[in-house]
Amino acid sequence: MTQYVYDFSEGGMDQKDLLGGKGANLAEMTNLGLPVPPGFTISTEACRAYMTEGKEPDGLSDEVSEHLKALEQARGNKLGDPGDPLLVSVRSGAKFSMPGMMETVLNVGLNDESVKGLAQVAGGDERFAYDSYRRLLQMFGSTVLGIEASVFAEALDALKADRKTGDDLDLTAEDLQGLIETYKGLIAEHGGRDFPQDPREQLDMAVLAVFDSWNTERAALYRRQERIPDDLGTAVNICSMVFGNGGDDSGTGVAFTRDPATGAQGLYGDYLVNAQGEDVVAGIRNTIPLAELEQVDKAAYDELLAIMQKLEHHYKDLCDIEFTVEHGKLWMLQTRVGKRTAEAAFRIAHSFATEGIIDLDEAVDRVTGAQLAQLMFPRFDSDAERHLIGKGMNASPGAAVGKAVFDSQTAVEWAASGDDVILVRRTTTPDDLAGMVAAKGILTSRGGKTSHAAVVARGMGRTCVCGADELDVDTEAGQFTAADGTVVKEGDVISIDGTTGEIFEGAVDVVDSVVVRHFEGDEAAEGDDLVRAVTALMDHADDVRRLGVRANADTPADAARARRFGAQGIGLCRTEHMFLGERREYVEHLILADTPDEQHEALSALLPMQRDDFVGILEAMDGLPVTIRLLDPPLHEFLPDYTELAVQVAIEEEHGEDSPRTHKLLAAVKRLHEENPMLGLRGVRLGIVIPGLFTMQARAILEAAAARTAAGGDPRPEIMVPLVGDPQELELIKAEIIAVAAEVEQETGTKLTFMVGTMIELPRAVAVAGRIAKSAEFFSFGTNDLTQMTWGFSRDDVEASFFSTYLDKGIFAVSPFESLDIEGVGLLVEHAVKMGRKQRPDLHLGVCGEHGGDPASIHFFDEVGLDYVSCSPYRVPVARLEAGRSASATSASA
Amino acid sequence: MTQYVYDFSEGGMDQKDLLGGKGANLAEMTNLGLPVPPGFTISTEACRAYMTEGKEPDGLSDEVSEHLKALEQARGNKLGDPGDPLLVSVRSGAKFSMPGMMETVLNVGLNDESVKGLAQVAGGDERFAYDSYRRLLQMFGSTVLGIEASVFAEALDALKADRKTGDDLDLTAEDLQGLIETYKGLIAEHGGRDFPQDPREQLDMAVLAVFDSWNTERAALYRRQERIPDDLGTAVNICSMVFGNGGDDSGTGVAFTRDPATGAQGLYGDYLVNAQGEDVVAGIRNTIPLAELEQVDKAAYDELLAIMQKLEHHYKDLCDIEFTVEHGKLWMLQTRVGKRTAEAAFRIAHSFATEGIIDLDEAVDRVTGAQLAQLMFPRFDSDAERHLIGKGMNASPGAAVGKAVFDSQTAVEWAASGDDVILVRRTTTPDDLAGMVAAKGILTSRGGKTSHAAVVARGMGRTCVCGADELDVDTEAGQFTAADGTVVKEGDVISIDGTTGEIFEGAVDVVDSVVVRHFEGDEAAEGDDLVRAVTALMDHADDVRRLGVRANADTPADAARARRFGAQGIGLCRTEHMFLGERREYVEHLILADTPDEQHEALSALLPMQRDDFVGILEAMDGLPVTIRLLDPPLHEFLPDYTELAVQVAIEEEHGEDSPRTHKLLAAVKRLHEENPMLGLRGVRLGIVIPGLFTMQARAILEAAAARTAAGGDPRPEIMVPLVGDPQELELIKAEIIAVAAEVEQETGTKLTFMVGTMIELPRAVAVAGRIAKSAEFFSFGTNDLTQMTWGFSRDDVEASFFSTYLDKGIFAVSPFESLDIEGVGLLVEHAVKMGRKQRPDLHLGVCGEHGGDPASIHFFDEVGLDYVSCSPYRVPVARLEAGRSASATSASA
Repeated sequence: MTQYVYDFSEGGMDQKDLLGGKGANLAEMTNLGLPVPPGFTISTEACRAYMTEGKEPDGLSDEVSEHLKALEQARGNKLGDPGDPLLVSVRSGAKFSMPGMMETVLNVGLNDESVKGLAQVAGGDERFAYDSYRRLLQMFGSTVLGIEASVFAEALDALKADRKTGDDLDLTAEDLQGLIETYKGLIAEHGGRDFPQDPREQLDMAVLAVFDSWNTERAALYRRQERIPDDLGTAVNICSMVFGNGGDDSGTGVAFTRDPATGAQGLYGDYLVNAQGEDVVAGIRNTIPLAELEQVDKAAYDELLAIMQKLEHHYKDLCDIEFTVEHGKLWMLQTRVGKRTAEAAFRIAHSFATEGIIDLDEAVDRVTGAQLAQLMFPRFDSDAERHLIGKGMNASPGAAVGKAVFDSQTAVEWAASGDDVILVRRTTTPDDLAGMVAAKGILTSRGGKTSHAAVVARGMGRTCVCGADELDVDTEAGQFTAADGTVVKEGDVISIDGTTGEIFEGAVDVVDSVVVRHFEGDEAAEGDDLVRAVTALMDHADDVRRLGVRANADTPADAARARRFGAQGIGLCRTEHMFLGERREYVEHLILADTPDEQHEALSALLPMQRDDFVGILEAMDGLPVTIRLLDPPLHEFLPDYTELAVQVAIEEEHGEDSPRTHKLLAAVKRLHEENPMLGLRGVRLGIVIPGLFTMQARAILEAAAARTAAGGDPRPEIMVPLVGDPQELELIKAEIIAVAAEVEQETGTKLTFMVGTMIELPRAVAVAGRIAKSAEFFSFGTNDLTQMTWGFSRDDVEASFFSTYLDKGIFAVSPFESLDIEGVGLLVEHAVKMGRKQRPDLHLGVCGEHGGDPASIHFFDEVGLDYVSCSPYRVPVARLEAGRSASATSASA
Repeated sequence: MTQYVYDFSEGGMDQKDLLGGKGANLAEMTNLGLPVPPGFTISTEACRAYMTEGKEPDGLSDEVSEHLKALEQARGNKLGDPGDPLLVSVRSGAKFSMPGMMETVLNVGLNDESVKGLAQVAGGDERFAYDSYRRLLQMFGSTVLGIEASVFAEALDALKADRKTGDDLDLTAEDLQGLIETYKGLIAEHGGRDFPQDPREQLDMAVLAVFDSWNTERAALYRRQERIPDDLGTAVNICSMVFGNGGDDSGTGVAFTRDPATGAQGLYGDYLVNAQGEDVVAGIRNTIPLAELEQVDKAAYDELLAIMQKLEHHYKDLCDIEFTVEHGKLWMLQTRVGKRTAEAAFRIAHSFATEGIIDLDEAVDRVTGAQLAQLMFPRFDSDAERHLIGKGMNASPGAAVGKAVFDSQTAVEWAASGDDVILVRRTTTPDDLAGMVAAKGILTSRGGKTSHAAVVARGMGRTCVCGADELDVDTEAGQFTAADGTVVKEGDVISIDGTTGEIFEGAVDVVDSVVVRHFEGDEAAEGDDLVRAVTALMDHADDVRRLGVRANADTPADAARARRFGAQGIGLCRTEHMFLGERREYVEHLILADTPDEQHEALSALLPMQRDDFVGILEAMDGLPVTIRLLDPPLHEFLPDYTELAVQVAIEEEHGEDSPRTHKLLAAVKRLHEENPMLGLRGVRLGIVIPGLFTMQARAILEAAAARTAAGGDPRPEIMVPLVGDPQELELIKAEIIAVAAEVEQETGTKLTFMVGTMIELPRAVAVAGRIAKSAEFFSFGTNDLTQMTWGFSRDDVEASFFSTYLDKGIFAVSPFESLDIEGVGLLVEHAVKMGRKQRPDLHLGVCGEHGGDPASIHFFDEVGLDYVSCSPYRVPVARLEAGRSASATSASA
């Protein structure tokens, strides 16, 4: 017979699967000898059995009876005893926290009789007793019987209005007795049955209601979004009630063992005298800092301090706790490892490691790349003056300052004339895209972290605060009004903090991250203790990681910065950037060339410029590998936009101002126009169709390498052919490169060392990876394109049009462009790795898509055995840290 | 020790791997006792050893010596004997025919001395002897020593000019002796050595030259294009020479055992008195029909007839042969299974089966779907008058008649005003695309079957003749001149036959295919014996095939035709066609809707129209499955073109004629505009983002099914959700469909039977096929899109821009849109089949891309175990035949 019910003394913190997070931690505290109100946990297994069988599993009821009896013995009173009733709370508690998703019923055990007993036991405090009963009716009605919460709230409001007060505390015991009768009537009317006077029936119904709450639409959606399996189920914790609202010698509080904002040691928390937990949340009265508890109740304070120290040492981490003092007696209601800011995470992990409580592997595991990235964003100067006017969701990090604008058009115009702007909208739609691109930051009053604004801003790296619902945004009038009455009109400057969600009136000073200043070599940053913490953990990550970290960089300046940030080479140097600016003219010559000679001439003009580019980059990365990708984008990207040019020529024609040149240009643009440029003539296809293009680039690279060698340098170019789908494409281009190399070696008398490899970015390339590896010396996974082709959507087109809906509906947990779709795209990567290495065991493998800087993706790339990841220079430290975390996690599990 | 050399008597027709095609058939004939000049074959193994070792393999020389000795004994003379020299031919012969790709040297064994002996043995015919020697020098110089053939041709032309003649036969023995001296000088000058007088050295060098010819660039490219492995190597056939040019009792000819054009029984061939094989090819004199040989040499004729009959019975197929009569003695030089027209293929296979020589499985294997497709094209009436003015390559089948135009612009304009046009160009480029779309047919004077014109025309299904190099096309003057002097000017009518490559002046009457008339139920076609042959083979194919064949059809008329052509249901009914025409207005309402109500209204207006569409199609396919795909293309496809509309609005603005409606429309088009619509908001994404769209379609389908059931019909709809990449997309839509079905069942009181499934057209869907199969009742592989996503190119964009280059360079053997890329896309299909069936063993599997009608692809789909293919109605018979061939091939190999 399966055991479904566990006394708190029977479990422990490792049993979250069975007891849920809350139950496991209550058990742990109980076994530590801490003052936890006695109680027991109905396991997740019972919930799963209930869901499978569609009814309460056999034996559960008897087990509950047994445990209830033990509980009654421990507490010395009985459930439903009219003289001295035992009251219990019934709380859900799943393995993974699902805040606000599931249900709680307090004060179970009260009825028309026992409420009187409670009053007696409470020293005749009738108000306390009837208020407790009123709360039970309210929670039972809404949670167990499914009645709209507003039904009860309205009755309560009506009563308060009648008594001409806004405060529950002004209601008398008699008022509450009347309210109880009203509530019972409402339950009968809306709930389809009377409120059960049998306490055991209350308890059983509450337990099933918690089970049922696992499968509400809201909870199911939350799980889809968070990728929590549907079949885990929830545990139910039955805990004897203790009351913090029994007088001034009682109270309730929350506390952290360290400051969760900064990581500083010391006691942090809030306490509310003569109150219950829900009152703290409701914010009816002001809390006092926890330290002041010492004055109020020194014994309880000292005990609490000792417990917190014990918990921190036991959990070896920052803990957050909930507690209640009942007539001077301290009770621990909950504990868990506490959430913290990025800064606190680094300081705490470092400090625990320094104190020898945890080792460096564990310390590195306690911080994340996402937290490090947060520390690297510029932020508002903490000393700067600021006027907070609202708060929304921290949808995309950063600190942005600019003039408020309320429509996309204005954002584009003002930005074009040099103004920094913040685009403020109720919500954004694909129509707002141009304005979002032009703005420094985006602020919306509606929508969550998966709203259009949030998704698109994150995709573009724009600062974004969304869902700031206290703001009254009036786009027609061009202004918004904050909760405090501040009115911000079009053109007024505001500041938004995408890391905290805060919104400020006026310009707040922005300071560079001290961590970035440190990476950049600013010695003044060395003394900072956050820098010390980061450095210590990064050093350890570098020591243990297997995965190399390179940067995506196209210029000597970017290459140099990447090196300062710890990059071990360049994984992607895009050459298309070298065809822009004034060089666009030569590309136009190339495209408009009427003869092979003219084409050759245009290419020859580009050669020395490209060579100089490569000399600079190879110098900045001297001694380290530099992977250079041959031209990838379609040629029409270097020409004017088709529609704009067509309109321009049409208008010129109307005015008789059209010229043969613009007509020739329009014809070329029209000829090269593609319905789907992403799926067109680009990458290796260009190299094959336009003779001389790739050989010119290869020659520029190899001449640059020869020049660097002659100058005493150590150039290590790796030539990368993009968009290969078939081995023969690579073979043709590789043969050309080898021929050029022989020429350059002969011309310069220099022995060249270089590799030729390919991007793996088409599913076709994955399918034939083994054969491609015959001629490729390295693979670099272009996971951006691979994601686009595998899913059949282009990032530019779809992020704005449907990603927010997909995130909302839980089809995506996160955009597959942010974090690698391991199940789909990852399967392809794995296949190509396997086939490639089978053909060529020393095949060098890397990734150069943006996923190379994404924490979750880095762990995957480490697991499948890539040699390195490559990402933007600013993500290099993040990648180093995550590569270290991945390695230490692997060694821990080995 | 490996045996490298085989006497003709040692081999047989099954040894093509070892002896090459020619050698194997020579051996077969020898062993049949037919008069083959004695000789021997150096195996492909020797060639492979030569290629691997980079030198003649050990032992080969000795083996050749032995076989040479045996040959000398058999012929009674000796290689290099000054009195009576044995002469041999040295010919390449690989496993797969590579016409014109490799080398031949005749008359090996002649030198300055033995040429005199040859003259003596030939009864003093010095001219014959010196001409033979001259030919050896010429072939040896160009083939073995690599001298440009033009070097010799120019010397010959100079001599003829000097002798004031254009005919080789006018040159005297003395002339030829002089020419021989000239040739020897040219060889010393250009070949880097003297012509070897040692006959054995001649032979050995010729053999190695044949080996080397395997690896010329030309041959390697041919193999890449034809997908012939590079490592097979060629055999070399050494055969004692016989001469058809020794007088009027000699001659040479080619023959077929049946008419290769019609399949009719009887003797077909040509004979040339007093000539060698190369003279027939050179076309110096006119040949006589083979039948006339009876008058010339009855004995040889009778013997030939008997041999041909024997060969046909032995090979059980049409044979083509080459033979020579030397002074009345018949010699067989070559035989092989002969090429034939499509019509002949069906007649011959049927006739052999009727005669009991082969069984029906074998007969079905002897014809191809491609041949059946040729028979189904309209063709020029064979009785119609016609004036042939040229011939090119049959690049894309069909018969097209129209006015000649010489530029794309004119083609578009004339076609728009209702003219049928044929676009005539030297070559086509992507600039010609619009003209090619507008034209009925395309004719070029340059480029082969992989040229731009050919590739694009096949992709569009346009008739095309390319590379008609006798035509002098002058696009500037707007005319072309045929070899016979006919001048065709712009506007003159011409007719081109894409099946034969023929070009006619004027309009030639076009007739429907008798086979199609038969399928369409025309009883007058029944008597035709081609129809009888086709019907017999099709019946057998239907009997044996495992694979079902459905049609892609969007209208009741198409559905009915498909049924007449043998379709067993509809595999793809596209619903986007139902949003065109006058219904476009409602789609515009839907897109421009400002409120959910307006959106709902637009959808409601479309519902009854869609329902009527489905009633018609379900009726036409009553009792058979009809797979209906929910809306797939992006919505902007129903709106005007962005660029055109932008230009229109800009011009209207210039004139002050712009209206709010056009502005609103432009804004909507701009908003919906996608850089890559193929990778945008389409398919299931539309269904999820636009509430009510897919439910409206599902309702229309299910209401139609209910109506058909009420009318006593047997509707079998299968609802197909396009572009699914993740199981959750399908689950969401499926839940909506199930809900609608319940509503419709309740409203109509009809029990509905239907399936819900998905297209597999994204690599992501392949990766998660197992999980998709949890909710999909069927998969239909959309191999068009799957090919596009796997390769990362869009058919519309790239066929014109780089496919011809890729086919030319052998990167593609055939466009992956014509025939499934089995190695790449096929791998994905296989994976999805495996994973899908593992999850759901009764998962129904089909394919609805255009590959469903492609012969090679059909065999693949049969092998991986799909349940059916679906293709356009006209391809249904082709698919039935190929499915039958695949099944009979499988049962034969089992």
